[in-house]
Amino acid sequence: MRSVFFLSDQTGITTESMGNALLTQFNELPVRKELIPFIDTELKADTAVVKIQNRFIQDGEQPIILSSIVNPKIRDKFKLDCVCFIDFFETFMPKLENALGQKAVQAVGKSHGINDEFKYYKRIDAIDFSLHNDDGATVKNYDNADVILVGVSRVGKTPTCLYLAVNYGIKAANYPFAEMDLKHDKLPKVLVPYHGKLFGLSINVDRLHQIRQNRIPNSTYADINNCKTEINAAEHIMKDQGIPFLNTSEKSIEEIASSIMQRVHLVRKF
Amino acid sequence: MRSVFFLSDQTGITTESMGNALLTQFNELPVRKELIPFIDTELKADTAVVKIQNRFIQDGEQPIILSSIVNPKIRDKFKLDCVCFIDFFETFMPKLENALGQKAVQAVGKSHGINDEFKYYKRIDAIDFSLHNDDGATVKNYDNADVILVGVSRVGKTPTCLYLAVNYGIKAANYPFAEMDLKHDKLPKVLVPYHGKLFGLSINVDRLHQIRQNRIPNSTYADINNCKTEINAAEHIMKDQGIPFLNTSEKSIEEIASSIMQRVHLVRKF
Repeated sequence: MRSVFFLSDQTGITTESMGNALLTQFNELPVRKELIPFIDTELKADTAVVKIQNRFIQDGEQPIILSSIVNPKIRDKFKLDCVCFIDFFETFMPKLENALGQKAVQAVGKSHGINDEFKYYKRIDAIDFSLHNDDGATVKNYDNADVILVGVSRVGKTPTCLYLAVNYGIKAANYPFAEMDLKHDKLPKVLVPYHGKLFGLSINVDRLHQIRQNRIPNSTYADINNCKTEINAAEHIMKDQGIPFLNTSEKSIEEIASSIMQRVHLVRKF
Repeated sequence: MRSVFFLSDQTGITTESMGNALLTQFNELPVRKELIPFIDTELKADTAVVKIQNRFIQDGEQPIILSSIVNPKIRDKFKLDCVCFIDFFETFMPKLENALGQKAVQAVGKSHGINDEFKYYKRIDAIDFSLHNDDGATVKNYDNADVILVGVSRVGKTPTCLYLAVNYGIKAANYPFAEMDLKHDKLPKVLVPYHGKLFGLSINVDRLHQIRQNRIPNSTYADINNCKTEINAAEHIMKDQGIPFLNTSEKSIEEIASSIMQRVHLVRKF
């Protein structure tokens, strides 16, 4: 068992993501991962150092440290003989300083920038919007929507809308195709004025069946033939109306959200 | 104006975050940033190369490329004389291969791992949970909650719960202290059995006033004295009851979420 520590003087969210992306390039690695965030004082660094040194003794192998620590004095404390140390800031700053023709400021917290308050409001607004315009609850705010997701129930509309709001500040509404919409093979009237904002989600029959079974087992709702009919009808409407759509079956929520950003040419709000 | 391109064979979300964190270490940099995700074929790479080359001609300065591309054949296409090229995978793989004593698999999409389906359900469950247990809507699912956030209205409970659900798969409920709770200076009865899961959010008076003004201008709700009374009463209950809490005033939602993860010893579900 190898130990991997993600260290950061801030939340460590990005460091952990990048570290995990790197580690998944190794097969079946039995690793114990631990995030230690907010290491912004020498005291906190010393405490973390002791923990890491103890882990080395316990494991009998060098812990791997993946870190993003701006302050060289704090960062250097982790350059121990008993670890494999990689720091993202340290690695790239010289090359970026050279390319940009200026020295890095080396200020902790800079990576949140000066736009924190702006970002706070943008995000809250987007989350409020998504919550109030979920599942076709109302259509009266669609003028303010950045995008309106359509599709059958449980295709991934709600989590995608929330992901877009939380992580990009995008105001995403969603409208489920109801039984009547699908039967009439027509785009719901309320959506017609917003055609340009519509983006569809579709899914494979087996996958939808599985997701709905998970929710309401052995219901008509989850029935495989019902799923098939609904998906076919929804895709028919979307193709007929020229509404762009993607199949969510083998995609994570981040992949769906990211594809929508790209295909609808949405720009993150923070 | 310098151009920065974030390139990825997947969503590029992590690459973009890491790239932005690095760039904020430079002061007042007039940069034009662009994310090009899903570069997983040579054709897509060639298209991106043309775009970047054109940008070089237009800017008269080397574009900076920050990338995470697993396939060396695709990655190498961006090693142009006219760019400053940094790739996260390429930079760290040799050191990690050495530390771990095995070769990287160099497979695109590995960084989503084999746990995609597991993650999908965990995330959907957590989001459903947060939506159904928002704002004290119901307390009957608190046995299943990983954490229950408490605090006055507009302190940041809902966005934090959703952030925890979307990004960590944490089932986070939230319960607002109502006027009566605050007046009686007592923890609401329904919360008593869940004392161990409670975490409080507080805020500075000015900040709450500003946020509420933004929402309902010149209301009693937004009145600065009312804000003060509510915050004092809420903090009194939390201190009295030994409920851990933090002040959200100068924190981003990621910082609040990350602090809660650490202080409540929550472990991400995916």
